[in-house]
Amino acid sequence: TSSGVFLLQMGWGDLGAFGEPSKETPNLDQMAAEGMLFLDFYTANPLCSPSRAALLTGRLPVRNGFYTTNGHARNAYTPQDIVGGIPDSELLLPELLKKAGYTNKIIGKWHLGHRPQFHPLKHGFDEWFGSPNCHFGPYDNRERPNIPVYRDWEMVGRYYEDFKIDLKTGEANLTQLYLQEALDFISKQQASQQPFFLYWAIDATHAPVYASKQFLGTSQRGLYGDAVREIDDSVGKILKHLQQLGISENTFVFFTSDNGAALISAPKQGGSNGPFLCGKQTTFEGGMREPAIAWWPGHIPAGGVSHQLGSVMDLFSTSLSLASLQPPSDRQIDGIDLLPVILQGKLIDRPIFYYRGNELMAVRAGLYKAHYWTWSNSWEEHSKGIDFCPGQSVAGVTTHTQEEHTYLPLLFHLGRDPGEKYPLSFASEEYQRAVERISGLVQQHKATLVPGQPQLNVCDQAVMNWSPPGCEKLGKCLKAPESDPKKCSWPH
Amino acid sequence: TSSGVFLLQMGWGDLGAFGEPSKETPNLDQMAAEGMLFLDFYTANPLCSPSRAALLTGRLPVRNGFYTTNGHARNAYTPQDIVGGIPDSELLLPELLKKAGYTNKIIGKWHLGHRPQFHPLKHGFDEWFGSPNCHFGPYDNRERPNIPVYRDWEMVGRYYEDFKIDLKTGEANLTQLYLQEALDFISKQQASQQPFFLYWAIDATHAPVYASKQFLGTSQRGLYGDAVREIDDSVGKILKHLQQLGISENTFVFFTSDNGAALISAPKQGGSNGPFLCGKQTTFEGGMREPAIAWWPGHIPAGGVSHQLGSVMDLFSTSLSLASLQPPSDRQIDGIDLLPVILQGKLIDRPIFYYRGNELMAVRAGLYKAHYWTWSNSWEEHSKGIDFCPGQSVAGVTTHTQEEHTYLPLLFHLGRDPGEKYPLSFASEEYQRAVERISGLVQQHKATLVPGQPQLNVCDQAVMNWSPPGCEKLGKCLKAPESDPKKCSWPH
Repeated sequence: TSSGVFLLQMGWGDLGAFGEPSKETPNLDQMAAEGMLFLDFYTANPLCSPSRAALLTGRLPVRNGFYTTNGHARNAYTPQDIVGGIPDSELLLPELLKKAGYTNKIIGKWHLGHRPQFHPLKHGFDEWFGSPNCHFGPYDNRERPNIPVYRDWEMVGRYYEDFKIDLKTGEANLTQLYLQEALDFISKQQASQQPFFLYWAIDATHAPVYASKQFLGTSQRGLYGDAVREIDDSVGKILKHLQQLGISENTFVFFTSDNGAALISAPKQGGSNGPFLCGKQTTFEGGMREPAIAWWPGHIPAGGVSHQLGSVMDLFSTSLSLASLQPPSDRQIDGIDLLPVILQGKLIDRPIFYYRGNELMAVRAGLYKAHYWTWSNSWEEHSKGIDFCPGQSVAGVTTHTQEEHTYLPLLFHLGRDPGEKYPLSFASEEYQRAVERISGLVQQHKATLVPGQPQLNVCDQAVMNWSPPGCEKLGKCLKAPESDPKKCSWPH
Repeated sequence: TSSGVFLLQMGWGDLGAFGEPSKETPNLDQMAAEGMLFLDFYTANPLCSPSRAALLTGRLPVRNGFYTTNGHARNAYTPQDIVGGIPDSELLLPELLKKAGYTNKIIGKWHLGHRPQFHPLKHGFDEWFGSPNCHFGPYDNRERPNIPVYRDWEMVGRYYEDFKIDLKTGEANLTQLYLQEALDFISKQQASQQPFFLYWAIDATHAPVYASKQFLGTSQRGLYGDAVREIDDSVGKILKHLQQLGISENTFVFFTSDNGAALISAPKQGGSNGPFLCGKQTTFEGGMREPAIAWWPGHIPAGGVSHQLGSVMDLFSTSLSLASLQPPSDRQIDGIDLLPVILQGKLIDRPIFYYRGNELMAVRAGLYKAHYWTWSNSWEEHSKGIDFCPGQSVAGVTTHTQEEHTYLPLLFHLGRDPGEKYPLSFASEEYQRAVERISGLVQQHKATLVPGQPQLNVCDQAVMNWSPPGCEKLGKCLKAPESDPKKCSWPH
């Protein structure tokens, strides 16, 4: 059975099926109606690159190295000047799937390091069309080079130069390119009757948000909604393609997001986390609860809904299970196999760990969530207008200093209070019972935790995408400045 | 064609189909899947009794008298000591439907006045099982009598005495009683082949929230969720009953709410307004945008979604249209006939007016909403812990003083910003264009506005439910104190 994963920056509340009031995602809603909707599904980190590392390794970022120790409880990701990336010691899903004869392709943003040793084709992927970093820019190619777009081993151009993004109108045809890549790859695999793993890691809803001309201005929600509509349309086309090729019953497809909607970019460039608190960058529900849909006609009963606490890391274990492979036994894997949930409606009791950097901020078990630390961002950043919780403010919860609650965690019941507004009374029996249980889970977790080497501590201008392989053929090699490694600055 | 209207206190975000994360409303979600979902549907006032008056008269509360002039921009409703009620001069939907041979029944809360002249059977209803006021209590029958429950002309007992509500456990079997009443009425009408209008105005989700024993503890959302589940189950049973009797194709059914979720009662006694700002009592979207579903098998295409700006007042005009009756021509009717929307997918351009008391607070036209006044509640009330926007605070928007913006309205684009967090720049062309259009609509509206006699100004202990008709048969008559009319106090 082949696997496809759609991953993008979108909030829990961005789909019609999840209550977005413009209801402009007919294809995703249809995917949910034909498949299974996960309402309690989480990413492994409230930022993109650690989440993606977690998805592909089945392990928390604190284990696979996608975190920083520069300061406490800091978010960190993979900018252009980062020195680190995915360590060779990590086993990625595509590396493992190869053993079962899979062809693996990544389309879109890799974000697990851009230096040669971190190239996706060195970590199990057979094909790549996309970029190593976010599509930020345009840059002047002096202080900072424009981000390259790769086909397999070599770059084929750069964003803003060869792959246009019009920041004024928001126009870019990238999603159409990524769509065509996916359709072609699927056709090729069907023709060769080879199982495949397709990781469609598009980024049109990540600022700077873009959409193709035919979608611009078509949404009630502005540019962000245009991008969502184009993604929705693309997902519909990919699923239809699988059906038309007659391989939908042999292809497990999962749609989810790498972090909550970036409210800091709202309303033009950021989406919605529905009824949840705050967004991307935070460990409140808005930062980490994700839309999620499993689709596998003929196997998953149509219209199912699951309250299984799920994680992007489960896609690692589930995809291995679909390929009849075992997860590696020499290391801790945080993902679980969701097939019993999806096929037999089981509920597996497991906690969700919410990390920022290497700090365990919160833990969910059942319907209870305990916050051991609270922080939105600093007063200093907040006073500059950087706000991860615009319009929201819960006293003692959305704190602007890092507040420790280790000895008396803030406890929420997410069924009665999905918005994390009403901490339970410390004196209540319910509090005692729930915190006791969660504390046990935390102890167990921490006892066995071996943090990986932190990959996101050191930055160096010299490692940026100056001269990616293939640049000489295009005349697009740039001269790197001298190496000057320093601690990366992670202000929040 | 018969009509049924389900009306209750529930927020936009309380249904699975509208993104409630526990997804515990399978029957309402099914009703939506078989019918048409309205995503932009409004009540006429952010409080219960003015909304209900608007639904039954097709007219804004400022016209039908359900407002106060005691102070500025005050919410007011129909408590036990109110002197006013629905004026005889108002024509109610059931009065008009009688001309087409309808039998009209109200089950549940009337809330349009409890003095003899306001009795629902004097205003067009043929049958009543329910109460004139909210089920607040228990009272001591000295300072304040317990609220009576009527069957038709006479009371058959009082809440807390003969109709139990256990405030400790939340147990009450009232929804089951109201369900049985509905099923029996429908059976009777089917047997006699008479068209009917059933107004199922239940109140289990209004504080004090209650549910029957079989539903207690069954929801992830606590007692409020238990009540929602029981209502959901009841709606399912009523629709199934229509189908089993073979009259579903002759019965137009509409589900909606009289105001947004009462966040002041959350999390135990209040629901969710999804991604919207604030709740009941306010003219932000959370106070007035409502869940709404139209169901009419064989006529409404299944799975439809409409962005028609709709109002509870439209149920007046639509129900008349279904009965081939014309709305009265001697007065302004604010409702419109939704049949072209429902049956032909039309979109009718019309504004939504958001009132508090007799003050026009805001106007929506298309996707734009202009606030002419902003107010959540006063600092004085807020400092007592009364909060209509818990966890939400938008600078300059959720104000605690009454802020006038008449000359420079606050403008929001509800597509890009459903949460009313980002006012548009006054200097933008978009602002100019939208405000110009809305100002024209306001002028037009105000020019023709003839406010009704305000019904909610005067309160008097003597008019409470001391000795409702039928009390003597039950030995439940109480002695009224002497009349001492005064201005009602409306703190917010």
